[in-house]
Amino acid sequence: MTVGSDSAGSVPVGAGVDYSRVFSQAIDRLHAEGRYRVFIDILRNKGSFPSARCFAGHNGPKPITVWCSNDYLAMAQHPKVIAAMEEALHDVGAGSGGTRNIGGNTHYHIDLEHELADLHGKEAALLFTSGYVSNEATLATLAKILPGCIIFSDELNHASMIAGIRHSGCEKQIYHHNDLAHLEALLAAADPAAPKLIAFESVYSMEGDIAPIAAICDLADRYNALTYCDEVHAVGMYGPRGGGISEREAVADRITILEGTLGKAFGVMGGYIAADRTIIDVIRSYAPGFIFTTSLSPVLVAGVLASVRHLKASNEERVAQKAAAATLKSMLADAGLPVMIGDTHIVPVMVGDPVKAKKISDVLLAEYGIYVQPINYPTVPRGTERLRFTPGPAHDEAMMRDLTDALVEIWSRLELRKAA
Amino acid sequence: MTVGSDSAGSVPVGAGVDYSRVFSQAIDRLHAEGRYRVFIDILRNKGSFPSARCFAGHNGPKPITVWCSNDYLAMAQHPKVIAAMEEALHDVGAGSGGTRNIGGNTHYHIDLEHELADLHGKEAALLFTSGYVSNEATLATLAKILPGCIIFSDELNHASMIAGIRHSGCEKQIYHHNDLAHLEALLAAADPAAPKLIAFESVYSMEGDIAPIAAICDLADRYNALTYCDEVHAVGMYGPRGGGISEREAVADRITILEGTLGKAFGVMGGYIAADRTIIDVIRSYAPGFIFTTSLSPVLVAGVLASVRHLKASNEERVAQKAAAATLKSMLADAGLPVMIGDTHIVPVMVGDPVKAKKISDVLLAEYGIYVQPINYPTVPRGTERLRFTPGPAHDEAMMRDLTDALVEIWSRLELRKAA
Repeated sequence: MTVGSDSAGSVPVGAGVDYSRVFSQAIDRLHAEGRYRVFIDILRNKGSFPSARCFAGHNGPKPITVWCSNDYLAMAQHPKVIAAMEEALHDVGAGSGGTRNIGGNTHYHIDLEHELADLHGKEAALLFTSGYVSNEATLATLAKILPGCIIFSDELNHASMIAGIRHSGCEKQIYHHNDLAHLEALLAAADPAAPKLIAFESVYSMEGDIAPIAAICDLADRYNALTYCDEVHAVGMYGPRGGGISEREAVADRITILEGTLGKAFGVMGGYIAADRTIIDVIRSYAPGFIFTTSLSPVLVAGVLASVRHLKASNEERVAQKAAAATLKSMLADAGLPVMIGDTHIVPVMVGDPVKAKKISDVLLAEYGIYVQPINYPTVPRGTERLRFTPGPAHDEAMMRDLTDALVEIWSRLELRKAA
Repeated sequence: MTVGSDSAGSVPVGAGVDYSRVFSQAIDRLHAEGRYRVFIDILRNKGSFPSARCFAGHNGPKPITVWCSNDYLAMAQHPKVIAAMEEALHDVGAGSGGTRNIGGNTHYHIDLEHELADLHGKEAALLFTSGYVSNEATLATLAKILPGCIIFSDELNHASMIAGIRHSGCEKQIYHHNDLAHLEALLAAADPAAPKLIAFESVYSMEGDIAPIAAICDLADRYNALTYCDEVHAVGMYGPRGGGISEREAVADRITILEGTLGKAFGVMGGYIAADRTIIDVIRSYAPGFIFTTSLSPVLVAGVLASVRHLKASNEERVAQKAAAATLKSMLADAGLPVMIGDTHIVPVMVGDPVKAKKISDVLLAEYGIYVQPINYPTVPRGTERLRFTPGPAHDEAMMRDLTDALVEIWSRLELRKAA
């Protein structure tokens, strides 16, 4: 039955639940907490990113500068990526037309899997339609293949890892963020005969900090645990070939399964895992989220191939991103703003209140043409609401100066707390 | 730790699980059952689909004819779709750069959601990265918003619906395929005060049959249940504007949530739901599989917009597909092959054995240049393994004659059972 008021005229047998009211109340709760999300309607300008057009509430699009994109290295506008996608579009068409097993396995998919396996020094890799799906499908399936498996999960792991762990039906033990002593205590207390998996990220995208991968691998060796490392905020950006933190620290060979995205630094869309041949074959053969879905469009895959190959050879984008992040961090700190100084490209500024975070973002967009989305619960814990800036090679110092000046003015206007 | 033999040298504390062996055994089970899947490596030829190039085990690509694509109307090569994607690629770039909430909400996404809402006569629509994700995320989230909800699910529902229902944590009642009496008996036996949801598909893609939607909606009204209808194998292909079986039978307004795909008849990639505004807002605001993932590439969205708009206005593709399906069904039936005659565009030929189904497929590809994937468990129940042909506007009579002749020869060579 439909839910709107038009269905209120007939009183069905067994009526009792007022669905419409239940759904409205779910929305009311979000408004009451100040965390109802309004999507900003934009179009980025290829060739001049981070400039974009914003459509919301204006007569015609208004020019803005984007400060919250995960297209970290501006690869979504790289000429090689665009050319590769255009070529694939004209060679093979728009979509793949099927699942990987039934008609949707293209030569591009196979080439990209080889390229990604090579990037991480693994035997094989497997593509998914998104990083979310790669985490969900792999963790859920892996643990099902290992009856009685216990999953040890960092408390700040991404929602997609949490979903995969939940769907696995395994016992889950949550360890304090990047806390090796706590992780070891949990491992030591667990049944030595049980299969174990430690799941963590390399770069935590909302904090901008990095996991102690080598030490986690030491614990995994000591307690015979598998390791699962999400590198979505690191691939393309760290390591001499963009293999992520695990490449930079030469520990990729110690990680059982590496997971990455094609939608952030690589600039396109999709996700993947890299591991030994048998594990890839198991996930390929058993994961419903891999098997029962139309494969990535070959147009996207062709673009990612160009992007991965370029970033394997070119260090220029990584150097420029690092410089941009360092410059912005100093400018914000010098201006007395509560910037969180970490070792990564991510620049969070703490607000600590969902309504104020949204207000700052609204003023930045309306008055300064600066777009940064407020980060509220459930993306971050309540009370740690923040703005999160992602400077990259395409953000210049003038833009950073404009941003810093705007924040200083707004901080003063709204009487917000500055850094200690 | 890594799993390969290179890690066998050190004997860690707490060792006991031989991970490598567990994973190998999981693969061995598939080989033993004859259902280990080998992906066929192809590239389709834009402009001359269903012709394609096959790369597996040959010196250079070999020309083949694709008979198992879900690009049902060949829209993946439609000039309007290609032109729209090329334009978006050059205007805004490769990827969206973020989630819908954080930087990844483009004007294309908003336009397409309006277009899809209009297609189904609903107030709103919501895009997902795939049809799989739209089913999983929506069903899991919807039922969580309705505590105590009972989900009534057709026994042949797709894996993605089953995943969503499982992840909702709700009570599930499975009714016999398209069996209204059984569905009603289950509804009547359930607590009248409990929220209820009936989940079904319009076209069942492996059988090629159609659900009695109006009668299911009658039961939903009688027992105050919500309805969820998966139209992924119908949108674009049925109804005067391609709104699916629900449009053809004028029952879309009676269905609470319609779900569709952008990766089959629309020729690109992605999924969606259409419903009233509040339900869309609830799913948009609460579903992790929607919130925490990079949005569809604007290039894909632009292509889908062109495809949906074209198929709303043009009937030519639907008429040609219907004619092709009718012709192929008669040819196969006249040749005495065990074709399953349904009312849809899907043409299954029953084999009933996974090894034989794979053998037929292998011979077709190697000797006849005809590509059709065998459909084995878990996609269909064991003992009902089959070949599944999807004729469309681009398959001509000569191709159908070649296919029929090849099957007759193979049926005779392998001494397979013909139709009764």
